[in-house]
Amino acid sequence: MVDLTPNSSFSLTIRLEIPNRVGMLASVTQAIASNGGNLGQIDLIEQTRAISTRDLTVDAASTEHAEMIVQAVKGLPDIKVLDVYDRTFNLHRGGKISVTSRIEIKSVSDLAMAYTPGVGRVCKAIAQNPEEVYNFTIKGNTVAIVTDGSAVLGLGNLGAEASLPVMEGKAMLFKEFAGIDAFPICLATQDTDEIVRTVKNLAPVFGGVNLEDIAAPRCFEIEERLRRELDIPVFHDDQHGTAIVTLAALFNALKVVNKPMEKIRIVINGAGAAGVAIARLLKKAGAETIIMCDSKGILSTSRPELTDEKREFAVKAQGTLAGAIQGADVFIGVSAPGVLTPEMVRSMAKDPIVFAMANPIPEIQPELVIKDVAVMATGRSDYPNQINNVLAFPGVFRGALDCRAATITTSMYLEAASAIASLVKPSDLNKEHIIPSVFDNRVSPAVAAAVQRAAREDGIARC
Amino acid sequence: MVDLTPNSSFSLTIRLEIPNRVGMLASVTQAIASNGGNLGQIDLIEQTRAISTRDLTVDAASTEHAEMIVQAVKGLPDIKVLDVYDRTFNLHRGGKISVTSRIEIKSVSDLAMAYTPGVGRVCKAIAQNPEEVYNFTIKGNTVAIVTDGSAVLGLGNLGAEASLPVMEGKAMLFKEFAGIDAFPICLATQDTDEIVRTVKNLAPVFGGVNLEDIAAPRCFEIEERLRRELDIPVFHDDQHGTAIVTLAALFNALKVVNKPMEKIRIVINGAGAAGVAIARLLKKAGAETIIMCDSKGILSTSRPELTDEKREFAVKAQGTLAGAIQGADVFIGVSAPGVLTPEMVRSMAKDPIVFAMANPIPEIQPELVIKDVAVMATGRSDYPNQINNVLAFPGVFRGALDCRAATITTSMYLEAASAIASLVKPSDLNKEHIIPSVFDNRVSPAVAAAVQRAAREDGIARC
Repeated sequence: MVDLTPNSSFSLTIRLEIPNRVGMLASVTQAIASNGGNLGQIDLIEQTRAISTRDLTVDAASTEHAEMIVQAVKGLPDIKVLDVYDRTFNLHRGGKISVTSRIEIKSVSDLAMAYTPGVGRVCKAIAQNPEEVYNFTIKGNTVAIVTDGSAVLGLGNLGAEASLPVMEGKAMLFKEFAGIDAFPICLATQDTDEIVRTVKNLAPVFGGVNLEDIAAPRCFEIEERLRRELDIPVFHDDQHGTAIVTLAALFNALKVVNKPMEKIRIVINGAGAAGVAIARLLKKAGAETIIMCDSKGILSTSRPELTDEKREFAVKAQGTLAGAIQGADVFIGVSAPGVLTPEMVRSMAKDPIVFAMANPIPEIQPELVIKDVAVMATGRSDYPNQINNVLAFPGVFRGALDCRAATITTSMYLEAASAIASLVKPSDLNKEHIIPSVFDNRVSPAVAAAVQRAAREDGIARC
Repeated sequence: MVDLTPNSSFSLTIRLEIPNRVGMLASVTQAIASNGGNLGQIDLIEQTRAISTRDLTVDAASTEHAEMIVQAVKGLPDIKVLDVYDRTFNLHRGGKISVTSRIEIKSVSDLAMAYTPGVGRVCKAIAQNPEEVYNFTIKGNTVAIVTDGSAVLGLGNLGAEASLPVMEGKAMLFKEFAGIDAFPICLATQDTDEIVRTVKNLAPVFGGVNLEDIAAPRCFEIEERLRRELDIPVFHDDQHGTAIVTLAALFNALKVVNKPMEKIRIVINGAGAAGVAIARLLKKAGAETIIMCDSKGILSTSRPELTDEKREFAVKAQGTLAGAIQGADVFIGVSAPGVLTPEMVRSMAKDPIVFAMANPIPEIQPELVIKDVAVMATGRSDYPNQINNVLAFPGVFRGALDCRAATITTSMYLEAASAIASLVKPSDLNKEHIIPSVFDNRVSPAVAAAVQRAAREDGIARC
């Protein structure tokens, strides 16, 4: 297991009974610190002459680490552990989203307007003019978050039910960052035809479809078919969200090292949904030399087992990642923890750019190569330069919904990436600041505006 | 067109510029009154020395009637109509529901717990123990409102998009009356197999399925198959919601006229989803003599074209509704406006009970037979004894979700009907008060408790 810093995804609250004697609380905080726990909030729950009850919030680095900290506190003389709450599990209890009413129903007259018989006139108006569905229903601001649970985060094929906490989280982000009403659709099928058919059947309620955590190569066909057959935007976030933000980060990283996109040699490790989409978008953005690797090494024309998408990027060269990366200017990892070694980084060209985006544990711990790289980015919030999809997807859908885009185009991606990159002022741009913060509230409106502009130029805006 | 009283489903706001002279506002209110409009709120918007701008809210009886009132006001000298808003359409603009976040995301630490990487532990916990989906996601409080748009209100086959305003309204009612998160699923297919397959694919996110506005006889097969193949409650509200509330009303109406269920002769007009479900439930409640009619008359064994569901209630007798109703104790209409004549009512047995539930215009206008009937009920809120599904479905799902019922049983319906009926105290019971008000907040908890009790007795409660 790669060593990690404590973070709030492994956050506990430990309720303790502590005698009111000098040094007792200190013994607890010391035990936590010396076991590597990160002490946060300390709340006093109640106090008698003899005893205080306190809640201590502690961040750990893993479940095992959390358990170790609890055991250390339990081992202290005279300290009684009353309860241990897992803050993350508590937060998810009962789910994270809710369907609420936008208008009050407090009287017979409210009912008669919002529901029968008044609603009948609204229904008839839509039946007569289908475009009215955008004016008098939720459709124009509502996105389906569709998954089959086959590639949940980095955890693999957990199935529909187990993917729901992620999709609810995504719905929260849609609301928080773009005011969009999104609803999770976790499908009890992993069959491509079934998924396409089901999503088409659902489409009337939704103004857009965000595909999520669907395994490659199935995800490519599903997205392509849905785009062809639906008249609303379909966007597989694991592909395009990641690609947009990666490109934005690369635009700025290249400014830091002063290299042009056309001249650089890029190695992408990981040829799943994200890797393929990144490669495709980088090509559209002018990148000319891309070598892709999967777990078996370079995608080589000599490998007969490659899928169509992998074949798209196959090169004559053969070999391992270690071979591919020699002399490369850029490493982009969307693969697995720890697959990049310091030696490989040191074999890269001058001023190497490393995006180690495997989640939650990157391809290489930044600490190991901090002196060897010109620019380093990860998917994590506890290091500089977090490459996080939330910079892209809320604004992409906001823009697409606002102009009723009939589909999503590559120029929308390129414009979105430029918009994100441009929010880092030249004077602020440096190796530890190539991308805006997730909480920079300029991002989503900037992306939305860029996407709308691209939609109008591409002639797919409908209002 | 049958004459109707003005109601808020045809409610307008007329913005007027009125000179500040004696009698000017009076001329407007008089014009509205003499054209049969029902004047509500009068708001002053702004006032100068010479002129006042006011918003007048007016209820009309129909779209044509509303137009007539506006024209009358426009014809007044010196009064200027600035704008006419349709209040119902305004209320529906942008849709009536919203997806909101139950927790705040304001920091990196919130994100790390609610979304990646923290959410991964919650996903794994559900993958390891599928029952945890009820604890850590929205499933346990979430209902899908599924329609194919084939029988929208009384308006017919308007399609998926045009049905959405109704389904949103339904979601509002679920929230308002039972705290349930419900989401509209309006399907772009009217094929039975497709609908069944699609709903099964969606089921992981939902704790229950409310089928709505699906045409008969398709609705029977869809419900039956989904019940067999899903482990969550499936409830077609047009059938069972209507049946429960009708039975509740009938329990109390029979007390008013002092007749026993076993002895009465019941005529049901309308053999669609609601009619069939009412007949089935009345039988379970002890009714022995039921004659059903459809638009072609009595469901007779001599009619070869009857569907399976109609055949279930076919009798030897033949003839029309007029023939069937002679000597009947109870008429239950779930059919079409104006099909019941005063003569037919007068041909019924002593103390006739008439439930004229066609919406929005009943089988007979209550005014026409008010002296001939012992008890009269309709689906409307502007007459006494409103038989409204909202008395049943919120509590039914509240009860079913709270005990994680694996399905819905007939004893739940019977218990729910008894619970609703019992909320009218014997001392309050009279011909104009056989059923509680829609806004009686005891109803939903009472129904929920009754449904839970029935689920436990039937052995289908899972917690």
